[in-house]
Amino acid sequence: MKKYVIGVDLGGTKITTAISDLEGRIIEKTTLATGSHLGEEVVMNRIFESISMVLEASQISDEEVRAIGIGSPGPLDAEKGTIITTPNLPFKNYNVVKPIVKKFGIPTYLDNDANAAALGEYAFGAGKGTKHMLYLTVSTGVGGGAVLNGRPYRGNTSNALEVGHMTIEPFSKHQCNCGKYGDLESLSSGTAIAKRAKEAVAAGRETSLKEVETITSYEVHQAYLAGDEVAKEILDQAFMYLGIGIANLIVNFDPEVIAIGGGVSKIGDLFFDKVKASARERSFDFMFDATKIVPAELGQDAGVIGAIALALIESEDK
Amino acid sequence: MKKYVIGVDLGGTKITTAISDLEGRIIEKTTLATGSHLGEEVVMNRIFESISMVLEASQISDEEVRAIGIGSPGPLDAEKGTIITTPNLPFKNYNVVKPIVKKFGIPTYLDNDANAAALGEYAFGAGKGTKHMLYLTVSTGVGGGAVLNGRPYRGNTSNALEVGHMTIEPFSKHQCNCGKYGDLESLSSGTAIAKRAKEAVAAGRETSLKEVETITSYEVHQAYLAGDEVAKEILDQAFMYLGIGIANLIVNFDPEVIAIGGGVSKIGDLFFDKVKASARERSFDFMFDATKIVPAELGQDAGVIGAIALALIESEDK
Repeated sequence: MKKYVIGVDLGGTKITTAISDLEGRIIEKTTLATGSHLGEEVVMNRIFESISMVLEASQISDEEVRAIGIGSPGPLDAEKGTIITTPNLPFKNYNVVKPIVKKFGIPTYLDNDANAAALGEYAFGAGKGTKHMLYLTVSTGVGGGAVLNGRPYRGNTSNALEVGHMTIEPFSKHQCNCGKYGDLESLSSGTAIAKRAKEAVAAGRETSLKEVETITSYEVHQAYLAGDEVAKEILDQAFMYLGIGIANLIVNFDPEVIAIGGGVSKIGDLFFDKVKASARERSFDFMFDATKIVPAELGQDAGVIGAIALALIESEDK
Repeated sequence: MKKYVIGVDLGGTKITTAISDLEGRIIEKTTLATGSHLGEEVVMNRIFESISMVLEASQISDEEVRAIGIGSPGPLDAEKGTIITTPNLPFKNYNVVKPIVKKFGIPTYLDNDANAAALGEYAFGAGKGTKHMLYLTVSTGVGGGAVLNGRPYRGNTSNALEVGHMTIEPFSKHQCNCGKYGDLESLSSGTAIAKRAKEAVAAGRETSLKEVETITSYEVHQAYLAGDEVAKEILDQAFMYLGIGIANLIVNFDPEVIAIGGGVSKIGDLFFDKVKASARERSFDFMFDATKIVPAELGQDAGVIGAIALALIESEDK
């Protein structure tokens, strides 16, 4: 009877909500501005509105919906349904699950966006058919999520797989936004790559990047492709460190698949070849060989598909 | 009706086997020499013999036994029941489970000794009542095991929690037995501590350790207590690196408890104080504060109690 689920991808700038069947096929989808600057209540009402919109557009009654999944930036408490605090949303220790359950009478589950993406890849993407898989996103930051023994793995405080904050180079001079030195995010994120490029330019090194007004990892990659030696050194180092982080995940989690998404991973073969070479060197061959390190498969809709997967998986055993 | 389980702690020098009730209370226990040098068949027969001995001594019939658990050094394949290879046992890709099932008609489970110890701590020791816990052993090597979501976590190839082989200091000059440089075992194991001490003596440094014939981590600790500066430097560094490894486990696994056993951990307060200080510095305060880092509680019988816990937990849902 309950043949549908709803996924809500809650972001700092927009809310994308979709209703799907139990195979994750999207029937209706809508996108609203989050309106973060307008406060908690406005954002909560826009979440309500987006859910009502997909229900109406699909002409599905709320009684036919098995569950709602919400993917949000963290830190949050998945068990309680509370967003603790996050830079781009107004919620402070705010329970976003209860008001939805109250309004729609549908079981609702919250998870951070990296975990939701992991569930999306597990259910519909690169992790399909596995028992143990990790998802990494290498973007502005470095984050992750896990499915272990076929279940979402969140840990004790819902913050497992904070992979970006593994220490990789204890006496590094590079500092992370979190305050620590030499963690993975300080060495291999898009932010770190851009920083290294700016440092090279500031140090007067001979590189085409000194002509670029706003340097991001994209421009560093472009310079690399054009034969820029400084750009090559920067990317090689970032990917080498990421490979060490991945090797540490392999020896600890012994997963079947590590699916990697996020802007920096879009560099493609160059990224995967260098990361894998470094990860192989730092793990055991037989464990490395047993781990598929692959691009995440879900594209543009990854966020909302992750939220749909969350709804599906969490309501499975109920 | 089935009110008992049997645990077999298979070691390179001895086999300890015990029969217990379903609360893990040991009824009878026996220890035999392994006889590793005599080959696979002899060792297999001694395992049989030890099982028959505890059955006879307790006057419990094999029909009353719910399961047998075997803890063995790895690497092994827990799912298949095969010991792949291990330095101190004769087995090479040898299935130790099938012959036991055939002989006694009792469901039998194999796991590596660190996982078995983790299960022991989870069921009867420092991890009692938790959902997510890690066990570490800091001894000749550094190993580990995990219980996640209340279930043993082994990963894809049964080799999860090879924590000793996380890279901690990528450009370290210290090499591990596994060939890698700067992994946790090369920096923080008992072997590493003894090596650093021997290197200091060989380099002609002023230390009381130059008077010691055979240096192990025990002698380094004794020298530390007597005020030896070189010994202090060596232990401080080993514990600092171990703290980094533990911080990496905290951000990745977000566990409730990390129970630490093994010879080096017997140093006690000094060990735990320094390791925790380093781990706090390298993880997030709120995650560190949510993780209890404590001594493993099971003493002398830890191996066989782990094997008993394996039998109990694996046969629970059957």
